[in-house]
Amino acid sequence: MSTGKIVVAIGALEEAQRQMIRETADACGLRVVFCDSAEQIADEVRDAEIIYSYDSSLGRLAPGLKWFHAASAGVDNFLKPGALPEGCLLSNSAGAYGVAVSEHGVTLTLMLLRRIPEYMENVRQHIWRGDLPVKTLTGSRITVLGTGDIGSNYAKRVRGFEPEKIIGVNRSGKVREEGIFDEIIPQDRLDEVLPETDILFMALPGTRDTLKLLDERRIALLPESAIVVNVGRGNSIDQAALVKALNEGRIAAAGLDVFEVEPIPEGDPAWTAKNLLITTHTAGQMTLVNTRNKNAQMFCEDLKNYIEGRTLRHLVNKELGY
Amino acid sequence: MSTGKIVVAIGALEEAQRQMIRETADACGLRVVFCDSAEQIADEVRDAEIIYSYDSSLGRLAPGLKWFHAASAGVDNFLKPGALPEGCLLSNSAGAYGVAVSEHGVTLTLMLLRRIPEYMENVRQHIWRGDLPVKTLTGSRITVLGTGDIGSNYAKRVRGFEPEKIIGVNRSGKVREEGIFDEIIPQDRLDEVLPETDILFMALPGTRDTLKLLDERRIALLPESAIVVNVGRGNSIDQAALVKALNEGRIAAAGLDVFEVEPIPEGDPAWTAKNLLITTHTAGQMTLVNTRNKNAQMFCEDLKNYIEGRTLRHLVNKELGY
Repeated sequence: MSTGKIVVAIGALEEAQRQMIRETADACGLRVVFCDSAEQIADEVRDAEIIYSYDSSLGRLAPGLKWFHAASAGVDNFLKPGALPEGCLLSNSAGAYGVAVSEHGVTLTLMLLRRIPEYMENVRQHIWRGDLPVKTLTGSRITVLGTGDIGSNYAKRVRGFEPEKIIGVNRSGKVREEGIFDEIIPQDRLDEVLPETDILFMALPGTRDTLKLLDERRIALLPESAIVVNVGRGNSIDQAALVKALNEGRIAAAGLDVFEVEPIPEGDPAWTAKNLLITTHTAGQMTLVNTRNKNAQMFCEDLKNYIEGRTLRHLVNKELGY
Repeated sequence: MSTGKIVVAIGALEEAQRQMIRETADACGLRVVFCDSAEQIADEVRDAEIIYSYDSSLGRLAPGLKWFHAASAGVDNFLKPGALPEGCLLSNSAGAYGVAVSEHGVTLTLMLLRRIPEYMENVRQHIWRGDLPVKTLTGSRITVLGTGDIGSNYAKRVRGFEPEKIIGVNRSGKVREEGIFDEIIPQDRLDEVLPETDILFMALPGTRDTLKLLDERRIALLPESAIVVNVGRGNSIDQAALVKALNEGRIAAAGLDVFEVEPIPEGDPAWTAKNLLITTHTAGQMTLVNTRNKNAQMFCEDLKNYIEGRTLRHLVNKELGY
């Protein structure tokens, strides 16, 4: 039974994006309800035909749901058994976060190279010294795990710093766009490039293929001077192994925006790991106006496809998990 | 009287650079002494013909000095009356620091846009939130004060983030190399661009023309959302006026590596200014191996020019101050 009701549960949307969604829904003959409180969401979602939200748990509450558009890029939680009603379409917003997440990734990379966490701790204590040995992107060998929207935008941004080379790594080794990476290799050749990696940047989706991809063995393949930055999914790294390697000085530093468990539990060794720069899963939130605009545009584009019975442009491949 | 003695007083030089200097000096028929302690420097410098150091105070101790090669890019201290004996040549190492200082500048810029100081303070207190509104280089209007080595390298590095435009500002408005800035304007037109500046990046030498260039009046021309980053000389900014503007929220944030007085004195309002990110004059130290190499190469290049009686390639224009 089609109710023609769209539930939008994304607090961060501003009036400009709401207006765009309202107009698109009108043109499609659908009714849209914007929900801002948990009570309102729980009430409205029960007879929703379409949901547009981050929150995968809403899928269970809407037995007649036909389509869930995830406001996130990652959809691992949406693909867990029972998360969505049988036959429900799933699309996502991969492509909306490239600018924001890659820029956060460059920020973490530069902070580690220039030892900013140590300098900020010095400044907090009014210790004036400026002579800690630093490293630079210029001339560095960069390996990018994940060559999608985020990995490609990262590569474009670090290119201007004149690294020695930027190697992309993806599932198939396929090049989708020329000129972004110096070379793209398939994931099964990752071990070859790790010993020649100064900066390992990770922007992988959370799938079976990426689970603990950076494990103890692969961490040991990196040079001692290497840094690791992860803005994709926390479970792509064996976090305990990484913390151990950091504490033992087997790699130089890591900058993580994502973790196996978020928030990081009190007492977790990640809080006190040596040379670990932590940010609180902030890279890909809807905190940038162009992220919000692009996200809402992607939903509206597929709203038209949905009502016309066309294949959704941002449909998730449930087998691949992205 | 020519003593043929070179005193090198730069602790950061490694054996590779010392060897290069030694060989060049040998080839020129000059004697080189590397000094690492203050006592040794004071003793050796008295009959030096050539000094290669950061430390402008050594010039007064060497009455027969013919040439001082400053290991720094900025030479304001070397140009003060009496700093060097009459007729002594002065050259500098502008050009050695572009990579290191511009990269530090991009780091500070990104940290401010992505509100990293606040996030790091949260993490210190184990507060888990990721939703502070952020800004981005993508689409930003960037104004670069100083279009030399550092300003140009900064422009090249931020270009990959796809800003709306990058305007360079220098003394004459002259374009030295095409394709780096979207436009270069002379310093006397600075006021025109300030109201349309999202990011003001400053990499100016310390000269009469740049003293307090960013004063209270010009700060007031910036939008409230603007950020200011300075990696050049502290006295290019009226620091008290900047701190006041920050505390009153009249600009969004500032990232400074240089200050009117360094170290910042205890009790100085800069320590507690709102949204002021401080680093401890670390951008342009010899902490990067390619800075050390390039610096020593510049000295060796001019050592050959000196002994052949040619004009030094890195000679400072004492009128301009750089």
